[in-house]
Amino acid sequence: MSKFDRVYPFTCDTEALAAQLKEEGRELKDLLGGKGANLCLMTTGGIPVPSGFTVTTDVCNEFVQLGHQMPEGLEDDVAAAVKRLEQQTAKSFGDPSNPLLLSVRSGSKFSMPGMMDTVLNLGMNDDVAAGMVRLFGDERFVYDAYRRLIMMFGDVVMGVERHLFEECLSKVKAEEGVTQDVDVSAAGLKKVVEMEKQVYKEHLGDDFPTDPMAQLMAGVRAVFNSWDNPRATSYRNINKISHNLGTAVNCQMMVFGNMGDDCGTGVAFTRDPATGEKVMYGEYLTNAQGEDVVAGTRTPMPISELEQRMPEVYKQFADICENLEHFYRNMQDVEFTVERGVLWMLQTRDGKRTAAAAIKIANDLVEEGLIDRKRALTIVEPDQLDQLLHPQFDASKKPSAVATGVAASPGAAAGKVVFTADHAVEAAKAGERVILVRHETSPEDIAGMHAAQGILTAFGGKTSHAAVVGRQMGKPCVVGCGAIEINEAAGQFSIGQTVVKEGDFISIDGATGEVMLGDVETGDSEIIAVLKGNVKAEDSIIYQQFANIMAWADDVRTMGVRTNSDTPEDSELAVKLGAEGIGLTRTEHMFFGEDRIINFQRMIISDNDEEMQKAADVLETYQKDDFYGILKAMDGKPVIIRLLDPPLHEFLPHDAEDQAALAGMTGKTQQEIADIVESLKESNPMLGHRGCRLGVTFPIIYKMQIKAIFEAACQLKKEGFNPIPEVMIPLVSLEGEYSICKGYTEEVAKEVMAEHGIEFEYMIGTMIELPRACMVADKIAAMADFFSFGTNDLTQTAFGFSRDDVEGKFIPSYIAQGIIQVSPFEAIDRNGVGRLLEMGTDLGREANPKLEVGICGEHGGEPTSVEFCHNAGLNYVSCSPLRVPIARLAAARAEIKNPR
Amino acid sequence: MSKFDRVYPFTCDTEALAAQLKEEGRELKDLLGGKGANLCLMTTGGIPVPSGFTVTTDVCNEFVQLGHQMPEGLEDDVAAAVKRLEQQTAKSFGDPSNPLLLSVRSGSKFSMPGMMDTVLNLGMNDDVAAGMVRLFGDERFVYDAYRRLIMMFGDVVMGVERHLFEECLSKVKAEEGVTQDVDVSAAGLKKVVEMEKQVYKEHLGDDFPTDPMAQLMAGVRAVFNSWDNPRATSYRNINKISHNLGTAVNCQMMVFGNMGDDCGTGVAFTRDPATGEKVMYGEYLTNAQGEDVVAGTRTPMPISELEQRMPEVYKQFADICENLEHFYRNMQDVEFTVERGVLWMLQTRDGKRTAAAAIKIANDLVEEGLIDRKRALTIVEPDQLDQLLHPQFDASKKPSAVATGVAASPGAAAGKVVFTADHAVEAAKAGERVILVRHETSPEDIAGMHAAQGILTAFGGKTSHAAVVGRQMGKPCVVGCGAIEINEAAGQFSIGQTVVKEGDFISIDGATGEVMLGDVETGDSEIIAVLKGNVKAEDSIIYQQFANIMAWADDVRTMGVRTNSDTPEDSELAVKLGAEGIGLTRTEHMFFGEDRIINFQRMIISDNDEEMQKAADVLETYQKDDFYGILKAMDGKPVIIRLLDPPLHEFLPHDAEDQAALAGMTGKTQQEIADIVESLKESNPMLGHRGCRLGVTFPIIYKMQIKAIFEAACQLKKEGFNPIPEVMIPLVSLEGEYSICKGYTEEVAKEVMAEHGIEFEYMIGTMIELPRACMVADKIAAMADFFSFGTNDLTQTAFGFSRDDVEGKFIPSYIAQGIIQVSPFEAIDRNGVGRLLEMGTDLGREANPKLEVGICGEHGGEPTSVEFCHNAGLNYVSCSPLRVPIARLAAARAEIKNPR
Repeated sequence: MSKFDRVYPFTCDTEALAAQLKEEGRELKDLLGGKGANLCLMTTGGIPVPSGFTVTTDVCNEFVQLGHQMPEGLEDDVAAAVKRLEQQTAKSFGDPSNPLLLSVRSGSKFSMPGMMDTVLNLGMNDDVAAGMVRLFGDERFVYDAYRRLIMMFGDVVMGVERHLFEECLSKVKAEEGVTQDVDVSAAGLKKVVEMEKQVYKEHLGDDFPTDPMAQLMAGVRAVFNSWDNPRATSYRNINKISHNLGTAVNCQMMVFGNMGDDCGTGVAFTRDPATGEKVMYGEYLTNAQGEDVVAGTRTPMPISELEQRMPEVYKQFADICENLEHFYRNMQDVEFTVERGVLWMLQTRDGKRTAAAAIKIANDLVEEGLIDRKRALTIVEPDQLDQLLHPQFDASKKPSAVATGVAASPGAAAGKVVFTADHAVEAAKAGERVILVRHETSPEDIAGMHAAQGILTAFGGKTSHAAVVGRQMGKPCVVGCGAIEINEAAGQFSIGQTVVKEGDFISIDGATGEVMLGDVETGDSEIIAVLKGNVKAEDSIIYQQFANIMAWADDVRTMGVRTNSDTPEDSELAVKLGAEGIGLTRTEHMFFGEDRIINFQRMIISDNDEEMQKAADVLETYQKDDFYGILKAMDGKPVIIRLLDPPLHEFLPHDAEDQAALAGMTGKTQQEIADIVESLKESNPMLGHRGCRLGVTFPIIYKMQIKAIFEAACQLKKEGFNPIPEVMIPLVSLEGEYSICKGYTEEVAKEVMAEHGIEFEYMIGTMIELPRACMVADKIAAMADFFSFGTNDLTQTAFGFSRDDVEGKFIPSYIAQGIIQVSPFEAIDRNGVGRLLEMGTDLGREANPKLEVGICGEHGGEPTSVEFCHNAGLNYVSCSPLRVPIARLAAARAEIKNPR
Repeated sequence: MSKFDRVYPFTCDTEALAAQLKEEGRELKDLLGGKGANLCLMTTGGIPVPSGFTVTTDVCNEFVQLGHQMPEGLEDDVAAAVKRLEQQTAKSFGDPSNPLLLSVRSGSKFSMPGMMDTVLNLGMNDDVAAGMVRLFGDERFVYDAYRRLIMMFGDVVMGVERHLFEECLSKVKAEEGVTQDVDVSAAGLKKVVEMEKQVYKEHLGDDFPTDPMAQLMAGVRAVFNSWDNPRATSYRNINKISHNLGTAVNCQMMVFGNMGDDCGTGVAFTRDPATGEKVMYGEYLTNAQGEDVVAGTRTPMPISELEQRMPEVYKQFADICENLEHFYRNMQDVEFTVERGVLWMLQTRDGKRTAAAAIKIANDLVEEGLIDRKRALTIVEPDQLDQLLHPQFDASKKPSAVATGVAASPGAAAGKVVFTADHAVEAAKAGERVILVRHETSPEDIAGMHAAQGILTAFGGKTSHAAVVGRQMGKPCVVGCGAIEINEAAGQFSIGQTVVKEGDFISIDGATGEVMLGDVETGDSEIIAVLKGNVKAEDSIIYQQFANIMAWADDVRTMGVRTNSDTPEDSELAVKLGAEGIGLTRTEHMFFGEDRIINFQRMIISDNDEEMQKAADVLETYQKDDFYGILKAMDGKPVIIRLLDPPLHEFLPHDAEDQAALAGMTGKTQQEIADIVESLKESNPMLGHRGCRLGVTFPIIYKMQIKAIFEAACQLKKEGFNPIPEVMIPLVSLEGEYSICKGYTEEVAKEVMAEHGIEFEYMIGTMIELPRACMVADKIAAMADFFSFGTNDLTQTAFGFSRDDVEGKFIPSYIAQGIIQVSPFEAIDRNGVGRLLEMGTDLGREANPKLEVGICGEHGGEPTSVEFCHNAGLNYVSCSPLRVPIARLAAARAEIKNPR
């Protein structure tokens, strides 16, 4: 049971209530919903809001817990609130001589536009209607309101299909030979009312209820029920809103925009939500109710028309909007009604906006002195920044999509279709842009993915291999596009009747999942163009606004931001985007280069240590170049290099033809190659012979990599650079694994440095990505300089989910059933994986207070996860280059919300 | 730094020292080693032990930590101890006129026989030797001792190969024309001494050291070094002994059994270690040192000879043995020497014994009033009981093995070779005994494994599928027998040149891993024969002894013991072996019956819910029978039934032929079947769509199983039985998964009970086998009646190890490198998996104090894991039927060690 009242009038003492709620860690809108809280605040602030009261979200939750039953005594509380309302408005609910009409509207903590139900004009019946006619003299208006009530009540509250009611009006319009609702006669509307009552009775057996209180309570119940309706549930799933917040119900005096031409209704944004420009942006409809605007049944006028028609009302409205911006310190999205020349504000909330608008508004509000920089950071959504950074199609030139898949890695790409990684590499060499189209991708495709402009797959979800690597590389990527049927043998894919052949151009939009035919033009976003030096900063307003936000974020945040990068180019871009170091360099992708893979394969299939060492020596020269490039690009910044992680079989060919080719190149028989591949096969490769387990069993491989790192660093030192390598040992679960690999590192580092006569600082640490490592983090930390949480694998092992196997198979069903709200591979699972991370961090720091702790899983670039990492006390998050700005902003917002 | 002295004389105050150690949770033998503690205790107890002192294990650990360096000042402490010894013995170290000679021997907390080093006769040099000749007049004896010292010192301390020294003696024996060491002349031995000195100098550059103190300190160092030698390390690995215990060094006055015929040396057990009979059991060798007995270079006499030769000495010896049994309250394994008619006890320790001897001795000691029942439980090793329960070969009739694999599931089995599960089933139907021989087994082979007497595989380790299921079924099983080459197509396997055809008889011993040709006779062990009613209890002494131990264990233990069983037969046997309920019934094996699999397949491949339900309805009747049988066998005892766990693809055929057959039976095309199989394929099935994830996505399957459980229970109720079903939901990681499956269970249970008009108690709970479940155990426990830890999967996910992939590949290397001491699939990993289990238990009980917590992973039958479960506060452990007695005893011992 809640300790709060069930019902609060809009005139309640919001300050006192807010203080009371704060004790429980809640805000006003937790109890009253966003809309209810705003209505109360506006009322208190002297803004003209129709009087009313709010039934709290706590009541809704009680209702749900009672199995969709009204809590006992609620009706009495509501009746008392109505009584107060009657006194305030000097009207009387159900009294024909001076009737009070009410609306009920839902309103949860977070705005869920159009997702839940509303009923207007409650309190009408035949007697009240007759009384209203006597009172207002406008029969048309009265019966229009009445027929709306019956329709909404029948539809929303009782579940009779709306079109059955709408048909009544259509029939009468046909009879009267008119097309516009406003042209229907009063008698006609009266007839509609009777027809609707008939429909009501036919479908429900009972008469439309004449008791106003019964109508009201049924309306409240309908709103509560709507909290759990499929639309609302799915909206919350999509928007990651918790299912247990509940909705409040706002009961409010009706005001009417449809009592004549001095009436009307409108919606407006206080600034342009597309561009951010400081202009009133909205629409107004004369002689209409709000739902006419929303429904689109009549075409509204621009809001500027209101200024011309009723300049005083507009002035009052504009002033109120300015007040609201001041009060809420943000651009507002408002609804209002004018009743007989009197302005009533119905709702205000923070307006949704594009990324470009968001950063402009934030900059402008600061400049206008309305908000400070910290506040500016809180009104830009980190996730949105993505839109500003990825290559973009020119919207005006974009054709319509022929298929749509999962938007996996944002950005626009166009190129010729190729079906194999090899073809992609060849074409790229020949200077062609290609889109790699595959059923799914695997590590063998890395070179092809690198070579391609973008990747399109028929299978896989947001965290499939293609998606993960695509995001990592910053390559546009559309996955799980079920509509395409690939026939690799025929060198084509089809979408329905459309056939696309290898070599044909297609374009993909990784931000929307769209697949288009032809070579749609794309380009760097303006901000990236500036960062690459192709556009001057002073010529780009959006860049300056972006740079401001980033600079303010950096001033505020207390957590570092690094990047995951495997190439010098990515590293350079990441630094320009604000990366303070590299949190993860994966070394395995480096082996897929044409000249390299054969040497890597030689190393794997060697018969003895000598052969293995020989192949490793060749690879070392390549690896040294790789590390040289990255360490140079990151000069003076720490670079975490992870030693080899994936199982060896990923590097060997699995079909007979390629095995024969490898046999030819290595002097083994095809059978020998096949036997080696077979012997390396694993039933669960994710849990197999990989990570430091390779290091422990094949020291030659790890020592080769370590040598390459320190050789590269020594060379850079000689050249006057300041390389800061940090060696990361992956997949540690046992203390002994770590100490053995650490031993190699120290031994090789010492040797190499001695040989060059050079000394420099370096660190050795480990990726914490297995639950056991979290449990024994103290023992590992005693030997380690740093931890980096690999939350991808930690999520897989903590849940016992294989990402590849579950995302398509049951995660969607889990979200639909409300078991989870978002895939744990997208946002960190705070209660499970998050607890392991906290335990690992705390235990680790207990044993080694200097331990540096970061995260390099994909969660490092996801705002809610970044906030979690801030709260967990991590030193830094690391993410792909284009997500670095997101992480910087998210880290700043986390600090504002919960200062360290 | 240890707070204890570095050196303790045998005459030290053991009581005071023990009290001091107890404050740190240590025992006497933690500091002094087992041998040192015993020598001190015997000395204090007035038993004639040659005087000496012990350098503690703490010093050894310091030595290891210093990188194998002697701690500073140790030599002074040893010198002081030698000085005290000189006073005690009235002899003088290195004094030719009255020389004290010393031995150094290792001695760690746990006996590691023959694993570490010993040096005798320290303190001799040319002068001392000459003095000893003057003193004893026996030149032969003196130079024999001297040449032994040089040999042992050269070998053990300095690392010169022993045979080089042995060759000196051989040469002289050849020169003198004698074959026995005792026949070599004094001059000859003197010559051997000189030759050995020569060998020493040749190989080491230096002369053999003449300074007694230098000899002694080098000896101490050698013993410390030997702690880390490969033999010792591997012994500890095999015997699950920690590597950080260290060894003590015992320095002791030499006594000589080789000074003439009134001298000798012997070893003895105070009772027969094979049968347990109360007879002195040992050997005596006249005029010899101890190593002559151990080395087997001379054939000793039975100990009874000593009685005849020196009756008084023997009487004294027998009395001492009896005293030792009284003191140590256990059968002892002693070493002694007689020097010129004087008896010296050199060592005593608890004697190793067979299982049969162990239970007889435990019974006898209780009867003799030497020990109480609790003590009796501590001197029987739980693991040994296995020997008494599995079918056995008659050792006298057993031929020699043609190959040896991994002993995976104990017991003896003989039968005709078959290569497929189908053939096994057919042959068994025809009444034939068969051994199923496979590369490895998979769930598709279950029916065949059931039908077979035993299983032999070419691949896989102790926890491969064959091994796990074999143990579960109590089927003898030899796995990973690399010597056999299976040619299934040719219907034969070969071992080198030997070819075994399908239909030929072979026999396997699952306790030793032996594979034998032919039909070697086997039978129930005597205890099982009694339990099955084939032998009367009063006719079986071993059964009575076993039953006593079990009864005493049950009196003591506070933790329950259940069994994992899938059939009524196993359940009945388990109850006879003491199971108090079923902790795990796997339902998946039940679907592999001939008539059933097709219906299960129909269910999986159904196009819609209707088809699926139809197939499920058929399966329900089978499942009801299954559950009826098990619940009846367990009348009045709780039976946990786990709902379907493995991924669906395990139930479908993977080769084209079988897919065609299935297509034929189900009216689908072969392509459709192939597509379904393909769509169900998983890259990491262990982490895939299985467990409750199936229940959430295919409610029909779980509801069918639940219905079958409650239908069976209702029928039993009507028949007057008392079924106690407990429904277990597997693989829960998310609270919502559990609550949805719990919902099904309550719903179906209510329906079925209402239909039958019957009410009974039942429980719903979950298997905790994923790390995330441990982290959110409180939230799950709030909805659950019980938790059962599935430590197999919990180990796999906590470590990120797939059992199938790692056991053969890197676990052996990990053990060899000391990263782990035992596979975490054998004994529970206390620091990682164990911590998760403790957290899960504690969190669960916090939220639900009535929560019943057990374990049903394979660890439930492994003694050290049982002890861990006791300490973690679990309500019960559950294991395969034949391990139930082991668990009962282990639980009792855990209670004795750490009372709840």
